[in-house]
Amino acid sequence: MTASFPTAAQALLPNGLRDLLPPDAEQEAFVASRLVATFVANGYHRVKPPLIEFEESLLSGAGRTAAAQTFRVMDPITQRMMGLRSDMTTQVARIAASRLARAPRPLRLAYSGSVLRVRGSQLRPERQFTQAGLELIGAAGEDAVAEVLLLAVEALEQAGVERVCIDLTCPPLVPALCAALGLDEARAQAVRDVLEQKDLVAVGDLVGAEAAAVLRALLETVGPAERGVEALVALDLPEPAVAMRDSLVALARRVAGAVPHHDLTLDPLEHHGFEYHTGTAFCLFGRGARGELGRGGAYETGPDGAVEPSAGATLYLDAVLDVATCPPPRRLVLISPTLPAARRRALQAEGWATVPALGAAVDQAEALRLGCSHILDENGQPRALAPADQG
Amino acid sequence: MTASFPTAAQALLPNGLRDLLPPDAEQEAFVASRLVATFVANGYHRVKPPLIEFEESLLSGAGRTAAAQTFRVMDPITQRMMGLRSDMTTQVARIAASRLARAPRPLRLAYSGSVLRVRGSQLRPERQFTQAGLELIGAAGEDAVAEVLLLAVEALEQAGVERVCIDLTCPPLVPALCAALGLDEARAQAVRDVLEQKDLVAVGDLVGAEAAAVLRALLETVGPAERGVEALVALDLPEPAVAMRDSLVALARRVAGAVPHHDLTLDPLEHHGFEYHTGTAFCLFGRGARGELGRGGAYETGPDGAVEPSAGATLYLDAVLDVATCPPPRRLVLISPTLPAARRRALQAEGWATVPALGAAVDQAEALRLGCSHILDENGQPRALAPADQG
Repeated sequence: MTASFPTAAQALLPNGLRDLLPPDAEQEAFVASRLVATFVANGYHRVKPPLIEFEESLLSGAGRTAAAQTFRVMDPITQRMMGLRSDMTTQVARIAASRLARAPRPLRLAYSGSVLRVRGSQLRPERQFTQAGLELIGAAGEDAVAEVLLLAVEALEQAGVERVCIDLTCPPLVPALCAALGLDEARAQAVRDVLEQKDLVAVGDLVGAEAAAVLRALLETVGPAERGVEALVALDLPEPAVAMRDSLVALARRVAGAVPHHDLTLDPLEHHGFEYHTGTAFCLFGRGARGELGRGGAYETGPDGAVEPSAGATLYLDAVLDVATCPPPRRLVLISPTLPAARRRALQAEGWATVPALGAAVDQAEALRLGCSHILDENGQPRALAPADQG
Repeated sequence: MTASFPTAAQALLPNGLRDLLPPDAEQEAFVASRLVATFVANGYHRVKPPLIEFEESLLSGAGRTAAAQTFRVMDPITQRMMGLRSDMTTQVARIAASRLARAPRPLRLAYSGSVLRVRGSQLRPERQFTQAGLELIGAAGEDAVAEVLLLAVEALEQAGVERVCIDLTCPPLVPALCAALGLDEARAQAVRDVLEQKDLVAVGDLVGAEAAAVLRALLETVGPAERGVEALVALDLPEPAVAMRDSLVALARRVAGAVPHHDLTLDPLEHHGFEYHTGTAFCLFGRGARGELGRGGAYETGPDGAVEPSAGATLYLDAVLDVATCPPPRRLVLISPTLPAARRRALQAEGWATVPALGAAVDQAEALRLGCSHILDENGQPRALAPADQG
């Protein structure tokens, strides 16, 4: 009947998994709640998909790229394989395409939750992290991307992030250019690799002088949007890339006008981590955050061939917490366990956390020992511990 | 580059797993946040353990009984087995015993999160559900149990649950009685089984007339505490059971005095689902809830043999949501996407959810189509849709 406990060795956690302790756990909950509250106030409805589901649905469509990162478990009831979600966008798309297939479009959905990945990356060693996001399903073009981008930025502002760097990309642009240049798949892949390294000489070797000039000109638009947008507009691009460029330019102008107090950059060559994005996309960064704060963009989803243009954004709580401003923890005041409930609740309403002196005197020594900054005095008012007691 | 989507069949979820849709997902988030906020205002500190950890730590000590209910996955990095948590109390005990081993006692910790179980039960078919709980580590006796019990009830009140039925139990009482009656383990198990069925005749056959009289008297204390407490006090029990009885009586009187507006019952014979409880324990019920709202009690934990008396309570969000009172969802007002941000935020501060008319007119037809109840009129004020339009 007695319960025992882990030994010190058993208390170790696997790499990339951790306990959030006080005050971090409270801060994460506060920020996640604040982010989703911003989405909800702007017409998004919260959904909560399960942590595990059948792998066919979890890893279908946009989820295919997540297969290698997904823990799998057997369902003992159906004997079918289930996966632990490594991302929530696919799940929200599934909900939109099935249970909410008849809800009017555009459908605005928001979520927050934990995801698990089989391996961490060098940049992000965590294997569990919390996402908060929004999906705008059944809306196309820069209007849709601008809405989710600006709301993601507004949510960050509401969580106390003062300055965001918004990096705009267009993942399908380089593939479209390679196709227009008549490059086969192997050559196109080689072009993407050298562009990634911004290696202009190698690009020239691969595609010849004329095509290299286009790519070089594109490379020169990378950087602050103020300069890059003008350079992009001036570019002479083959046909299928023109619409993409125009869309990126329109988005950049829209965002620059809406949030001039944040930094805006362009990187039309970037495509890493945008595996399911079909149009303009973006990364959000913050000074002092370990990794990116979030990302998003245009994608397509829908049930059984009825493709719906959509846009979404996901914020990563671990990075957001590095730059968010959280309210300080409640100050602790030591009280008697017999303090009337009405007085205790009144103190809590004033912002105190009331700590009952359980089986101990309500005195300065006990307050100090329990980490309280205050003690309830004879008039029922919180009194700061005397300096001598705090030493 | 295009993303696809699940077919209708792929969109099915495994038994016992479900999507929370609007407005349920928002209500669950609201209630979970409200419950933990009550714990935090009373000096509890939020922690957040990971969803998976090594099975030795997850299934050690108090977690042993959860082994059959725990999904396991291989950690590809260490090649060791990990488990998906099926309960959070063991995890919080691990944190208290390891990373917070030096924090002053009593240590007050709170949490909220999802747990997964391999199989649902008849009463609770869900395989994933959300818990919110509190643990008071390093505190003994009815003071400790009363604190967590009354705080769990107060948290339910704060979430709008009007009437709670508190059922007090003492899981070690029957085993102690059986030991005092000199019954071997097989006989003791048989006694527990027939007591479970309240089968007085079978009890007499098992233990003889004198011992059966004690058990029968105990059985008669089951029910409303007002009557049961007096009957319990009058009982002539063998020695080791006396202290347990006294503790149960003290707790019952304490709780009856503190929350006379709730229902209080006794069931000193109940021990189901209290595998790690070592003293008085309790279940909380609510009229109209599918299952129990929560449970808790006294247990022991601690690192490497240094046993700490503790008490804790866990609330089950799915049941709590059946009886909680949630604020109504924000009313939706259709606005122009170009509405100045300051005006939009002012509307949100008044409780509106603002829905931008994306690529559509800001008119009654669009508002109706999107499920808005209001539209922003020419003076910038929300106006209810005209009756003709709502028909």
